[in-house]
Amino acid sequence: MLSKQQLSFVKSLHIKKFRQMYGKFLVEGDKLVHELLASDYKVDAIYALAGFKIRSNKLPCPIVLVTEEELKKLSTHENPNQILAIAEIKPTSQTLSDLDLSASLCIACDNLSDPGNAGAIIRIADWFGIQNVFFSLNSVDIYNPKVVSAAKGSMFRVNCVYTDLQTLFAMHSKMPVFGTFMDGENVYHANLPKAAFILLGNEANGISPTLASYISKRISIPAFGKAESLNVAVAAGIITSEFKRQGLL
Amino acid sequence: MLSKQQLSFVKSLHIKKFRQMYGKFLVEGDKLVHELLASDYKVDAIYALAGFKIRSNKLPCPIVLVTEEELKKLSTHENPNQILAIAEIKPTSQTLSDLDLSASLCIACDNLSDPGNAGAIIRIADWFGIQNVFFSLNSVDIYNPKVVSAAKGSMFRVNCVYTDLQTLFAMHSKMPVFGTFMDGENVYHANLPKAAFILLGNEANGISPTLASYISKRISIPAFGKAESLNVAVAAGIITSEFKRQGLL
Repeated sequence: MLSKQQLSFVKSLHIKKFRQMYGKFLVEGDKLVHELLASDYKVDAIYALAGFKIRSNKLPCPIVLVTEEELKKLSTHENPNQILAIAEIKPTSQTLSDLDLSASLCIACDNLSDPGNAGAIIRIADWFGIQNVFFSLNSVDIYNPKVVSAAKGSMFRVNCVYTDLQTLFAMHSKMPVFGTFMDGENVYHANLPKAAFILLGNEANGISPTLASYISKRISIPAFGKAESLNVAVAAGIITSEFKRQGLL
Repeated sequence: MLSKQQLSFVKSLHIKKFRQMYGKFLVEGDKLVHELLASDYKVDAIYALAGFKIRSNKLPCPIVLVTEEELKKLSTHENPNQILAIAEIKPTSQTLSDLDLSASLCIACDNLSDPGNAGAIIRIADWFGIQNVFFSLNSVDIYNPKVVSAAKGSMFRVNCVYTDLQTLFAMHSKMPVFGTFMDGENVYHANLPKAAFILLGNEANGISPTLASYISKRISIPAFGKAESLNVAVAAGIITSEFKRQGLL
């Protein structure tokens, strides 16, 4: 049986303040926990229903067996899926200037606020082989269980860095910064380079004026209808796909 | 002051069963209500805070003034934005065989379950000038307030139809059906037609086997990394964008 202390510790990780205080986060469900175990993230604890079979030869820690009722208390889901793990948030060991971004495509998110969008964008990076995704310091916490869930394991393979984007762009001033606007150049014809930052803005307010001044190229996704905008993750997918398509030509 | 009856009627529309029973749905917030008023949807009631200014010359109904506290009770949002309207769900007057789909691109969603994805897909349709989006009968209710919110007004401009997709494909058997799979033909080189169905699957399970048998062309978005899949709305955006880009060549 779980102690009160274990229960309250795990539950505290539902909240950002405690995730930051302890440097730990929750990973929930069969598929995600297995993706975690296959990654280089450190795993501190695993809670699973009796009878659940883990498909991994070496376990990083003993498994604590829990009842369905206990798992429900630990989980952020209404119907939790058999297993839950606690992983350690990676320290940002590399300083920005150490990061080798040359010849690479990067995504930078300015004040991104929706967990589902953050997860979808990390999946886009993983799909298209983009190693680094940068988040401004006021963006949503990617260790939020909703982001972890929406990223479908991709966050264990993509390097996600919280940083001041102005400093990042200033340090890598040779890398062009692409921003998407209604009046930008048609992305299909824009002659896109292999190395660049794709800068994404906030869901409601777009790219902030301070960061807009770092943009070296304004591009647009051609509109054929009357929508004012696309969902930010959808736009990120279209732009990234177009960079990759042109890179294959 | 709102009567108990008014309050309980509006609140009932938070729930699918009652939206279907009354044939009405909620539209919340300044921007969306103005998009609604500019559309051909019939508006039954408007509730607004005293002092809120509606930017529309002819109103379809009188405005009921409410207090902030009352608006909070009516709304599905924690912090409702000044105004809320009740609109009528359009009857599906056109039978499927009457719909003229020739020379047009259509999106068909098979058992789509996430409200945010449904909204993002309706925005994609509106952005790329796609008139018709079909939803299988087991897909999420697009009159769900979360879908209405995520669609950002695009649902007032795009024709959204719930129908049996097998019947739809059988009736329009000359239109090719495109499905996205890991082993499909690279979409960048696939030679896409101007008229087609883009079939999207369920978030967890993809396209159902019954519908997969209607697919005439299997395509893929080239993967450069290790993600197993993309978010379905992101994939829809990339595929639709590629259809449109090739259509411009």
